[in-house]
Amino acid sequence: MPTFKLTTAYDGTAFCGWQSQPGRRTVQGVVGTAWQAITGEQPDITATSRTDAGVHAAGQVVGVRSETHLEPEQLFRALNAKLPSDVVVLSVELAADGFHATRDAIGKRYRYRIHNDRRRPLFTRHFVWYLPQPLDVVAMHEAGQSLVGKHDFASFQSAGSDRKSTVRTIFAVEVTRGIDPPANGTGDKDDDSPEIWIEVEGDGFLYNMVRTIAGTLVAIGSGRRPASWLAEVLAAADRRAAGQTAPPQGLTLLKVNFPRN
Amino acid sequence: MPTFKLTTAYDGTAFCGWQSQPGRRTVQGVVGTAWQAITGEQPDITATSRTDAGVHAAGQVVGVRSETHLEPEQLFRALNAKLPSDVVVLSVELAADGFHATRDAIGKRYRYRIHNDRRRPLFTRHFVWYLPQPLDVVAMHEAGQSLVGKHDFASFQSAGSDRKSTVRTIFAVEVTRGIDPPANGTGDKDDDSPEIWIEVEGDGFLYNMVRTIAGTLVAIGSGRRPASWLAEVLAAADRRAAGQTAPPQGLTLLKVNFPRN
Repeated sequence: MPTFKLTTAYDGTAFCGWQSQPGRRTVQGVVGTAWQAITGEQPDITATSRTDAGVHAAGQVVGVRSETHLEPEQLFRALNAKLPSDVVVLSVELAADGFHATRDAIGKRYRYRIHNDRRRPLFTRHFVWYLPQPLDVVAMHEAGQSLVGKHDFASFQSAGSDRKSTVRTIFAVEVTRGIDPPANGTGDKDDDSPEIWIEVEGDGFLYNMVRTIAGTLVAIGSGRRPASWLAEVLAAADRRAAGQTAPPQGLTLLKVNFPRN
Repeated sequence: MPTFKLTTAYDGTAFCGWQSQPGRRTVQGVVGTAWQAITGEQPDITATSRTDAGVHAAGQVVGVRSETHLEPEQLFRALNAKLPSDVVVLSVELAADGFHATRDAIGKRYRYRIHNDRRRPLFTRHFVWYLPQPLDVVAMHEAGQSLVGKHDFASFQSAGSDRKSTVRTIFAVEVTRGIDPPANGTGDKDDDSPEIWIEVEGDGFLYNMVRTIAGTLVAIGSGRRPASWLAEVLAAADRRAAGQTAPPQGLTLLKVNFPRN
């Protein structure tokens, strides 16, 4: 059966996360409903990342196995006409045979946004964690480098996960001052911005891993912990060693990488 | 009585505009309620611009006449703690004797944001007018220059206004591709952006004037009218000559200028 590869973006504020749940509004649910209205089929839908309630996406990849004879361009138009205003389909293409959005992904990049200013966030308030006390971005960035590489990230995994291995490879951790992303885009850097961006790219992530990294880096940025603490937390391989789990609304799935892309 | 000068920002989505109206949620209303809760006084509050329902502000100036003995810094903290999340006070200062937010302003700058891309807006959807068909930004900018100067803007005034004179001076009209403004800020320019910004600065504006200029420029940008049409519309001094009034959610009051600032 052919598989379509959809690149999607959503504002997670009014969703109970990606994954379908009875009686809850989820992104998988509204995409499935739209697909069914257009094609008459109840499709098999898989996303690369099962984002949690309140988490946003600027580039979530969704695979849809479907017998439809509609062209990708027709699906692009019909889906964007049917979907609610808080979900957008950025592109539709026919994927190679056997494409699987989760198994085939070789990397994902997340951005955690912190509004770090004495003035409250306004237009961005649903997309940031508001922390008025000044944070040391350089210390956070330096500490974050100890996560880069192949490590056991058990300290950064919340309870309730069913993953067998807690070993993952992190390709990059970048902590910078950044401005708002442009509509559906990835934005620029700006040293005078009220926002701090924690960007983490890796081959896979444990449950709540980026949010726990963000909460742990904030303990360092605020001076409550030294930069060297992050390496200790990692070495402990115990969730109790790490900082708090940062709230979901600051997190955005930026993009997903596939081998031949 | 002393007057405090507040610079404020708000997301106009859930407000019935600036001005207090019985039974409606307005920005003037929530600022007055917060001030009264903090000081016990029912204050006299005036804004530079009486923005309409759905219109946003990144730098609205508000004058509050009050006998309070609280310091500006105390008022800044207390107001931001009391106000709802869609209104932010950016600064509080004690104004010169006799300060009046409307009469003393010598200029105002507005930005009208158009999302001009085949992909729908997502994170910015409450702050833009979505027009997927390609618009000619250069033609819009060139046409807009005929508005600069002192003119009778009767063609750009909606019915229902009580202004005596329809003559205003426009200092600048700039039409560019721009990215999202950063939180509470004014943003940068970017030629690849899906957004078009129409910025208009002048000494005063008639009712719906910026929105009518935006709607008229869109008729030029889409090719339905030649760039020379704008000068004809202006010369007609008749609202029926102009284009449509663009919808309110695309409009943001960016800043207000005062003589000694």
